[in-house]
Amino acid sequence: MHILIIGAAGMVGRKITAAILADPAIGGRTVTALSLVDVTAPQAPDWPIGRVSAKAVDLGDPAAPAQLIADRPDVIIHLAAVVSGDAEMHFDKGYRVNVDGTRALLDAIRHTGRHTGDAYNPRLVFASSLAIFGPPFPNRIPDDFAPTPRTSYGIQKVIAELLINDYSRKGMIDGISLRLPTICVRPGKPNAAASGFFSGIIREPLIGQPAALPVPDTTRHWHASPRSAAGFFLHAAGMDTASLGHRRALNMPGLSATVAEQIEALRAVAGQGAVDLIRPAHDPLVADIVGGWGEDYEASRARALGFTAESNFEDIIKVHIEDELGAALPAPAAQ
Amino acid sequence: MHILIIGAAGMVGRKITAAILADPAIGGRTVTALSLVDVTAPQAPDWPIGRVSAKAVDLGDPAAPAQLIADRPDVIIHLAAVVSGDAEMHFDKGYRVNVDGTRALLDAIRHTGRHTGDAYNPRLVFASSLAIFGPPFPNRIPDDFAPTPRTSYGIQKVIAELLINDYSRKGMIDGISLRLPTICVRPGKPNAAASGFFSGIIREPLIGQPAALPVPDTTRHWHASPRSAAGFFLHAAGMDTASLGHRRALNMPGLSATVAEQIEALRAVAGQGAVDLIRPAHDPLVADIVGGWGEDYEASRARALGFTAESNFEDIIKVHIEDELGAALPAPAAQ
Repeated sequence: MHILIIGAAGMVGRKITAAILADPAIGGRTVTALSLVDVTAPQAPDWPIGRVSAKAVDLGDPAAPAQLIADRPDVIIHLAAVVSGDAEMHFDKGYRVNVDGTRALLDAIRHTGRHTGDAYNPRLVFASSLAIFGPPFPNRIPDDFAPTPRTSYGIQKVIAELLINDYSRKGMIDGISLRLPTICVRPGKPNAAASGFFSGIIREPLIGQPAALPVPDTTRHWHASPRSAAGFFLHAAGMDTASLGHRRALNMPGLSATVAEQIEALRAVAGQGAVDLIRPAHDPLVADIVGGWGEDYEASRARALGFTAESNFEDIIKVHIEDELGAALPAPAAQ
Repeated sequence: MHILIIGAAGMVGRKITAAILADPAIGGRTVTALSLVDVTAPQAPDWPIGRVSAKAVDLGDPAAPAQLIADRPDVIIHLAAVVSGDAEMHFDKGYRVNVDGTRALLDAIRHTGRHTGDAYNPRLVFASSLAIFGPPFPNRIPDDFAPTPRTSYGIQKVIAELLINDYSRKGMIDGISLRLPTICVRPGKPNAAASGFFSGIIREPLIGQPAALPVPDTTRHWHASPRSAAGFFLHAAGMDTASLGHRRALNMPGLSATVAEQIEALRAVAGQGAVDLIRPAHDPLVADIVGGWGEDYEASRARALGFTAESNFEDIIKVHIEDELGAALPAPAAQ
């Protein structure tokens, strides 16, 4: 089985790659080849038992799609995107990559083998986002709640979902779109994303560093770990899609937690010393952006289809410690 | 004030044109120029007090958008579409006109005057459809119910709505999308549309002709008259859009009625003789298609914004008699 990951150099792409290398089985089949592409070439891991390629490909390039699918990967995991802030700033660039690039990929697939009776119908797993939803929200967002994004990025993600629904309904691809929660604890350095503090207030104290909290601790948000996110894609890559019908976009499961609950979990796992490193530093701009996000989702279709995520925030922290900190708390934060 | 109607030769386009000619005032301003375009040139009506042009323009032609807006109409009413059955049969044609044509129109608008400090920001009223919704449905569909179309036409309409939301949020256009109910009573000859019988069982008996009823009389559906449909567009052309925020697609009001209620209304207006012309002729294919449509909509946002439709089916029949039959019942159906 051959897997193509478009956008493989990003955090989720690297987690999926690592998970496949650790256990190269998807839906009962063995993965024997892995093609990793991104705007800049991803690192090609050592993989003695399978074939790995790593290439730089820009999905905004009209020639890219045909090149990507030339050797007919069985599963395409499509993570490539011009991200939120960039798409908001650069209108044409966002549409060119997020909409036109995705559509060109779908068209390249449907034209492959079309006239030779040798049609190509790969599983395509697309990374969408729960940022497609916009206010006003109910307290708990149902699966059939209408997407009304407040960003060009969100609009572009919904358009891609709709195309994937239509091409799948027509039997041209076998697609599924995963609307991802905020990934927490995000590894790496603090970044400028408005959602960055949700990870920062856990990640930084765990290594003895201070972290700013720009919102009230009553702020509620929807989280899943990087490990769960990789699991969503691998489950979607191997699942039976027959029951999806014409609705192939799924709200992914997660955990609804307030910042206060995050902090309590940090205290339970790493002690008061870690919690003391969180410094309230109210930022009205961040608070306003975060106030426009959903707080809780039913995600019942996805759960019924076998997608799973953490059910308490301590587990999310423990996943971070196991996967990023070598399963041990460094000395400074430990009690 | 200059109004451009794209798709002016169709039934709704002709109703809007007639309504403007009868009362050339929109949102407190006087209409002085009317540009009518369609794939084949619409008939140019006599209009002594204003300027009318009528031209053949294909929105699928990449040169069309710039040409259409060259003289900067104040309001653009966009009705042009490859319709449902055609878009389902001809995949690329549907996307070319319904998605790419609409996007090219939006881009032509945003590029007009962009570099001369003389930006062009017209009101754009887009004809969407309640056919964007797909089952499973609640009994009464709320305004925030997610569009999950089961046709390429529906997918293409939602994509156009999303583009209109985004371009409007960015201040590039001032757009609004109207999701239309089934128009009933549709004037003219019987046609092959699966929804045709909803009009046929009223229109044909009123002129003494038999009409087939392919579904059980318990079938419930959502109707508005052609006069109401024209009214939706004229109201949207003149309204204050500030309160729409980033959600510029509205479910239009209508009347939820069963076929039995339609028949009772026909009896009340035109007598038993008219009702006797309705011949049950069950068609499982039509029944199956119609069974996949919504039956009732809240449409509370649109009503709060001043959109109105009929509230009982007798009024829908009377509108047809006034507007199409010269305000008198022909002899054969009268009691």
